[in-house]
Amino acid sequence: MNRYRMTIQYDGSDFFGWQVQPRECTVQQCLEEVLARIDGMATKVHGSGRTDQGVHAAGQVAHFDLSRTIAPGDLRKALNAMLPATIRIVAVRPVADSFHARRSAIQKEYRYFIWNADCVPPFLCRYRTLVRPPLNVAAMNAAAATLQGTHDFAAFTANPNRPVPSTVRNLTLLRVTRKGREIVITARSNGFLYKMVRSLCGLLIRVGEGAVPPEFAQAILESHERTAQVPTAPPEGLFLWKVFY
Amino acid sequence: MNRYRMTIQYDGSDFFGWQVQPRECTVQQCLEEVLARIDGMATKVHGSGRTDQGVHAAGQVAHFDLSRTIAPGDLRKALNAMLPATIRIVAVRPVADSFHARRSAIQKEYRYFIWNADCVPPFLCRYRTLVRPPLNVAAMNAAAATLQGTHDFAAFTANPNRPVPSTVRNLTLLRVTRKGREIVITARSNGFLYKMVRSLCGLLIRVGEGAVPPEFAQAILESHERTAQVPTAPPEGLFLWKVFY
Repeated sequence: MNRYRMTIQYDGSDFFGWQVQPRECTVQQCLEEVLARIDGMATKVHGSGRTDQGVHAAGQVAHFDLSRTIAPGDLRKALNAMLPATIRIVAVRPVADSFHARRSAIQKEYRYFIWNADCVPPFLCRYRTLVRPPLNVAAMNAAAATLQGTHDFAAFTANPNRPVPSTVRNLTLLRVTRKGREIVITARSNGFLYKMVRSLCGLLIRVGEGAVPPEFAQAILESHERTAQVPTAPPEGLFLWKVFY
Repeated sequence: MNRYRMTIQYDGSDFFGWQVQPRECTVQQCLEEVLARIDGMATKVHGSGRTDQGVHAAGQVAHFDLSRTIAPGDLRKALNAMLPATIRIVAVRPVADSFHARRSAIQKEYRYFIWNADCVPPFLCRYRTLVRPPLNVAAMNAAAATLQGTHDFAAFTANPNRPVPSTVRNLTLLRVTRKGREIVITARSNGFLYKMVRSLCGLLIRVGEGAVPPEFAQAILESHERTAQVPTAPPEGLFLWKVFY
């Protein structure tokens, strides 16, 4: 078998998330269908991780095995010719069998884009979360600084039905920047819990609006319990930005 | 009656153009339905001009009359609250009854966005026309310079079934600029014929690809006849950018 690694961009608006679901159109499923047509055999596409419904990717990474060798440039062209325009393969290259898109990843970066104004321009409405009250970026960064580092992030995950061995993660970066009406939250970690980025963003937005003070982040973190104090920010502003290997 | 002027942005992808059509969803129709709900009476929305199916607007202007006076800020908020997110009202203000969005316009500017690369990022695929061969912007500008000015643009319009009194127009600006992979064609005129912008762009793209030399523009112009030599560029890259009064 020949293993390939690809970098994928997608507009999550039209898909039911990354992962194959019965009776739903997902990104993984689109990729597997097209690869099966190219290779003539069913193949599984392994992503670096799932993205939820409505979440986008600027740099999702996945690997797959083909029964034959295809030049990477030809493979990329064939994929883009058959995929919908809302999924684009930006790079393909052969990799060793030891490469695994999920297990080999050492870090991931997400970016959350907020449009801080009265309304979002129509051309951005699929890719920005509208927040009308003017956000205090300094306060958001003060709270973000508290959350950075290795902590138990139990208070920032959803779905307790899906238990994980540990809720401790190393959040190596959490930073908020503003450029005009656009506010970007950058989050980098060795691994994210389910809905962790959107939960972090949900709290940071509340801090930015002045609903809670920056110090509140520490108390939430120490509570180890998910409550309504931490809303899950909507998916449309979220991009899986980069996977580090 | 109280006349208002509004500036509108819309993503043309989801609409069957500007103008009300039987059994189709159009921008004008959306606006008229929402205004009727706000005012309690049917009102007609007069745009500065039509845009075709799939064409966007960054600065369409329209006027309408209401039976009562509403503060412009409130009217804008009410409109945006009821309209789909792909239509946004960026400004509303009261105007004199003598103002007419179409008849008072003295000039219009369109911008055509080309993505000159192997593929368009998914987040831009609704708003950029993909052209794969590297375009020669200098050649395009040489052809554009020939087309600028007052000419009979009969060779750059479509649909002879819709006769107009004159096909002479003053093209005050036609310019091509490149910034990385993005090429923008800016066209400004006192009035555009049906599909004129997309026809001008269609020829300029052929020149940029090297299919025809820049001097060809002059011959086409003087032919006064629309032929297959001038393709109509696809709608997704086109934005009605600004209307001048």
